[in-house]
Amino acid sequence: MNKNPQDLRKTTIYRNFTDYPSGSVMICQGRTRVLCTASVEDKVPSFLSGSGRGWLTAEYSMLPGSTLQRKERDIKKGRQDPRSVEIGRLIGRSLRASLDLSKLGEHTITIDCDVLQADGGTRCASITGGMVALSDSVARLMGSGALAENPILHKVAAVSVGICAGVPTLDLDYEHDSSADVDMNVVMTDGGGLVEIQGTAERAPFARDKLLEMLDLAAKGIRELFKAQESAAVLAVQS
Amino acid sequence: MNKNPQDLRKTTIYRNFTDYPSGSVMICQGRTRVLCTASVEDKVPSFLSGSGRGWLTAEYSMLPGSTLQRKERDIKKGRQDPRSVEIGRLIGRSLRASLDLSKLGEHTITIDCDVLQADGGTRCASITGGMVALSDSVARLMGSGALAENPILHKVAAVSVGICAGVPTLDLDYEHDSSADVDMNVVMTDGGGLVEIQGTAERAPFARDKLLEMLDLAAKGIRELFKAQESAAVLAVQS
Amino acid sequence: MNKNPQDLRKTTIYRNFTDYPSGSVMICQGRTRVLCTASVEDKVPSFLSGSGRGWLTAEYSMLPGSTLQRKERDIKKGRQDPRSVEIGRLIGRSLRASLDLSKLGEHTITIDCDVLQADGGTRCASITGGMVALSDSVARLMGSGALAENPILHKVAAVSVGICAGVPTLDLDYEHDSSADVDMNVVMTDGGGLVEIQGTAERAPFARDKLLEMLDLAAKGIRELFKAQESAAVLAVQS
Amino acid sequence: MNKNPQDLRKTTIYRNFTDYPSGSVMICQGRTRVLCTASVEDKVPSFLSGSGRGWLTAEYSMLPGSTLQRKERDIKKGRQDPRSVEIGRLIGRSLRASLDLSKLGEHTITIDCDVLQADGGTRCASITGGMVALSDSVARLMGSGALAENPILHKVAAVSVGICAGVPTLDLDYEHDSSADVDMNVVMTDGGGLVEIQGTAERAPFARDKLLEMLDLAAKGIRELFKAQESAAVLAVQS
Amino acid sequence: MNKNPQDLRKTTIYRNFTDYPSGSVMICQGRTRVLCTASVEDKVPSFLSGSGRGWLTAEYSMLPGSTLQRKERDIKKGRQDPRSVEIGRLIGRSLRASLDLSKLGEHTITIDCDVLQADGGTRCASITGGMVALSDSVARLMGSGALAENPILHKVAAVSVGICAGVPTLDLDYEHDSSADVDMNVVMTDGGGLVEIQGTAERAPFARDKLLEMLDLAAKGIRELFKAQESAAVLAVQS
Amino acid sequence: MNKNPQDLRKTTIYRNFTDYPSGSVMICQGRTRVLCTASVEDKVPSFLSGSGRGWLTAEYSMLPGSTLQRKERDIKKGRQDPRSVEIGRLIGRSLRASLDLSKLGEHTITIDCDVLQADGGTRCASITGGMVALSDSVARLMGSGALAENPILHKVAAVSVGICAGVPTLDLDYEHDSSADVDMNVVMTDGGGLVEIQGTAERAPFARDKLLEMLDLAAKGIRELFKAQESAAVLAVQS
Repeated sequence: MNKNPQDLRKTTIYRNFTDYPSGSVMICQGRTRVLCTASVEDKVPSFLSGSGRGWLTAEYSMLPGSTLQRKERDIKKGRQDPRSVEIGRLIGRSLRASLDLSKLGEHTITIDCDVLQADGGTRCASITGGMVALSDSVARLMGSGALAENPILHKVAAVSVGICAGVPTLDLDYEHDSSADVDMNVVMTDGGGLVEIQGTAERAPFARDKLLEMLDLAAKGIRELFKAQESAAVLAVQS
Repeated sequence: MNKNPQDLRKTTIYRNFTDYPSGSVMICQGRTRVLCTASVEDKVPSFLSGSGRGWLTAEYSMLPGSTLQRKERDIKKGRQDPRSVEIGRLIGRSLRASLDLSKLGEHTITIDCDVLQADGGTRCASITGGMVALSDSVARLMGSGALAENPILHKVAAVSVGICAGVPTLDLDYEHDSSADVDMNVVMTDGGGLVEIQGTAERAPFARDKLLEMLDLAAKGIRELFKAQESAAVLAVQS
Repeated sequence: MNKNPQDLRKTTIYRNFTDYPSGSVMICQGRTRVLCTASVEDKVPSFLSGSGRGWLTAEYSMLPGSTLQRKERDIKKGRQDPRSVEIGRLIGRSLRASLDLSKLGEHTITIDCDVLQADGGTRCASITGGMVALSDSVARLMGSGALAENPILHKVAAVSVGICAGVPTLDLDYEHDSSADVDMNVVMTDGGGLVEIQGTAERAPFARDKLLEMLDLAAKGIRELFKAQESAAVLAVQS
Repeated sequence: MNKNPQDLRKTTIYRNFTDYPSGSVMICQGRTRVLCTASVEDKVPSFLSGSGRGWLTAEYSMLPGSTLQRKERDIKKGRQDPRSVEIGRLIGRSLRASLDLSKLGEHTITIDCDVLQADGGTRCASITGGMVALSDSVARLMGSGALAENPILHKVAAVSVGICAGVPTLDLDYEHDSSADVDMNVVMTDGGGLVEIQGTAERAPFARDKLLEMLDLAAKGIRELFKAQESAAVLAVQS
Repeated sequence: MNKNPQDLRKTTIYRNFTDYPSGSVMICQGRTRVLCTASVEDKVPSFLSGSGRGWLTAEYSMLPGSTLQRKERDIKKGRQDPRSVEIGRLIGRSLRASLDLSKLGEHTITIDCDVLQADGGTRCASITGGMVALSDSVARLMGSGALAENPILHKVAAVSVGICAGVPTLDLDYEHDSSADVDMNVVMTDGGGLVEIQGTAERAPFARDKLLEMLDLAAKGIRELFKAQESAAVLAVQS
Repeated sequence: MNKNPQDLRKTTIYRNFTDYPSGSVMICQGRTRVLCTASVEDKVPSFLSGSGRGWLTAEYSMLPGSTLQRKERDIKKGRQDPRSVEIGRLIGRSLRASLDLSKLGEHTITIDCDVLQADGGTRCASITGGMVALSDSVARLMGSGALAENPILHKVAAVSVGICAGVPTLDLDYEHDSSADVDMNVVMTDGGGLVEIQGTAERAPFARDKLLEMLDLAAKGIRELFKAQESAAVLAVQS
């Protein structure tokens, strides 16, 4: 990772990566690559039925070839990887925070985040890329008249931050993540509000002032990610 | 919940609640009650085999009768409740942070947290009660000569904190938890270090200063929980 | 087990052990402890729908810390322990025999028997304790006007009996159960009728007269268990 | 069912029904037909490894076309029918009682009981037919020199008995079984010893003297089943 | 296998093998024996609901004792054998090709093919035998007035063919199948049309002219199987 | 699909699509896109252990966003899609036919085919693309000295062919595939040998001469696919 501790890794976001989903995004952050698709159904979970409100849910999975050692498929082991379940729940909560669900009508948007290549920060890349897929999907729903008002309250983006050999470090790749003393994921809105903060002492408890340093670094990185979301382009694979 | 926002709920911890496990604790925090048992095996997961290091893992489950509406057993649905998996992972990470695993020998300690009654804060109560079960288990291992040195580096305890109707509030019961704007769980050591912090905006993004207010309140509550750990007693159920 | 072969182990039954279920009982028989809760739903299985009749079902499970060697959770193995399924079916049949289901209305009562500590006789303790939880649940349904008539026809209770080193023995603990020649479980009503009898030759076939001796001993034990049901009290765990 | 209450249904036992298993039997009892095969493996479950002792286990299943309403396969529902599990355990216990496992060497015999047509009494027919498959398998093991001594201590056979409209009745078909007040299964040795007795009050508790009447009737039926075992023949299906 | 390469194995088909299913057939082809039952339900899968059209589906399974080495049940391994799923899909497609589903009304016919003894060619025997069970079932539906018109367009039958040591060979048993260079299954109608052709090079790619030789041999064998279907008789097992 | 019936769809193959697997290919055929990765392990299934021979296996799966209607993940339904299992088996058989497994050493190569976008012909595209991933993987193994000799005997490629409105048609997209009378998949070597042929009459039986016309068309298409394999290039997604 040839970058300064306070820098974000190179990040490119491609829109319309595939044709069928309502939103389809590939986000590349360093060597990490995640395909984020948004699919819309005209129904809601039973607890919302008849409420006029919509729902958003997310699922996260890693392809077998996404890691250095091939990762066995969940279905072969008969149960979903608990880490994947936990990350899917985080992505869903984070992206729901961007929406006024009462303006979504009784639609469910499913954000599928499938990791093509994993080099650290996949959960945060999924949120950042998923936000673009969600925006594209909402734009399509508004274009078709399925939604009268824009339900998006905020854009959200996410980044990881940690303490590596005593140095607060932004956007860890796999190698740095594995050796960090503290690992934290931060989700924020474009208005600067906190949506989710998850910090874990991997090696030793950390003090309150380190928490604040990491928060500042994350805020800086997230501001740059909002710019990458803005400049997302289209990748032609079959001319 | 007849308590001030800055107060902890009444907390009682019973040791030796059952006879067979190496540590067995029932923690009562308000109406929440969790049975935490520690079991020891003379083996470690394969990734630690031959390393001389030990391991700690945790599992969390709610009994069917623990909630107002009966909760169906996971086995009937064919898969573990993803929320339970996520909580088990948090308990495991938090309690591992209390240990120097290199002093545990090739033992695995399993902390089982089974919720007998759920009125909010069960994951934090599991950590606080689990720490007592872990301490008792370690004491027994040292007493029998299975461990030469005490592997416990820190005591840990955990508490939830939130913002309810704008007011930072400690140790939410189920009713308050359901309506809180922000929900945060904090795990700390008796030395005052942060082990885990998980904050989620349930209704609206929150600002950095609110985060700090909640952190202060959590630190105060956790200090009181260390006292409850110290004063844990035995409950006689069959004279 | 410091008791005479013809004696019951010390038995204490606590009511209202937890707050949410319609009936909540902890039964202690020797070192065996089972939490029995009764939950009521306003619906019946499809084969009874529209019949005006109710249903009772039971589930049995052992907590991981309930045995000397930690017992892995069923959900981790991906299937319910067949012994637990079989015991749940026995508990359900036995407690249904206490009811006139046509007076229960279209309610389903689920009796959950979760073993906190297992020292033999857990299936019988579940039936004896479950009967108290069922009675409390029915009393609550009648108190609230949900039931017009009492559907309880009989009280039932259950006990194990065996032949140990040639001696007919009542209420075996785990150690005696493991070495018994014959193992039998008997469920009876307070009117003295047989509800269920399950006898198994563990080591050698047994003669008809031994069967009769065991039946007599079981009947004596069950009479004492009906007294323990009558004198069930409340245990305060959080003053 | 054109038979007197005290009569057994017509019973025919075919040996060598298929070619590959070590024992292969089709038992026809009334319209009930069960294929019982015995397979031998040169290993034992881990708890017996190195003990020099053998093991016997049994599995029971109903083919989809065996019932009036097609029965869905367990694998389609993702879990084994609990009734089938319970019956498999009963068959295994009953047939193990016929063996001196210390003379079996470290072999495991698996008795598979697959119901081709179910008209009541399938679990008892499985035991009676399974005994013949087991005997044939043991004879083959002795013939090949794999066993030095005959491990069979007793022959066992089983029959159902019940009380129908107040009348003790032997060997119930499905129609009678469904309306019986009491349903009991009895497993006995050719020496007249009891191996297993399972009686259930389906409609009302039953008295001790009714139990004794049913036991006498079962003993008579089982004596006739031992004769049917003796006269088992071979059915040629492909000349 | 004492037969010429161009011969079919001896084939006998028994009808009414069991009493409950709408069609019940045991087909014996060499040592291979498959029980094929047809069950009818008055409903269709949701994608056909309201269409007035019927459906046919098939399931294939091998009994544990059907093979030289006992075959573990799918339910014990927690998932259906992929080969069995694939074969069930082939049987279903092949038998649907015999029907005009628009004349079946909204019925679903399930063909269950349970292999009692496996000596090669079980998938083809299932199709050939399943066709007879289907015909009997349709005859019964027409006899009862449930169907106005005969939905059967063609009879179908199937046979395996291969190249063994360079020689095109019909109807392989297990031993020949295991050593064949090419393995092909062919399903045809009584009108001589191809329904399904599945050929696999097991050892080396094969040329187009070998494909044609095998097709000719299969067509000859299938003509003989249609005769065996015609001459199916009843086997009395319980006089 | 603006193409003549006898034409292949535009096909582009990208190599080194991701960095970690031993071979990583994205194949685009019309709108169909499949990611094919090859992973190598230094072990073989137990039936080959100690044989000195290697193994190749394949898995096939569709991403949730790959279809017009979102496809639910297998793990959510608790079982692998039977069609996916069947296709994985076909891919594995076909690619194994390209190898002399005795020259592979005791390595297992796993070919993972994950469909990013499905517009017909995904199983054939998986084989054609998988062959390139396999070649790259073998080249890498030879480059590193892990293999002494090239185990690749033939290149293989696959194409679908059908009869649409009476016209033999090559390389069907989803729309044409859904309405074809006959659907056939053909796998061939670069030497022109047949590896696998699977033809199904979807609407009406087909005659032998139609089979031959389809075979000719497939052979032509496969020759073109071998050219596309030769000209595979690299796609830069993160400059």
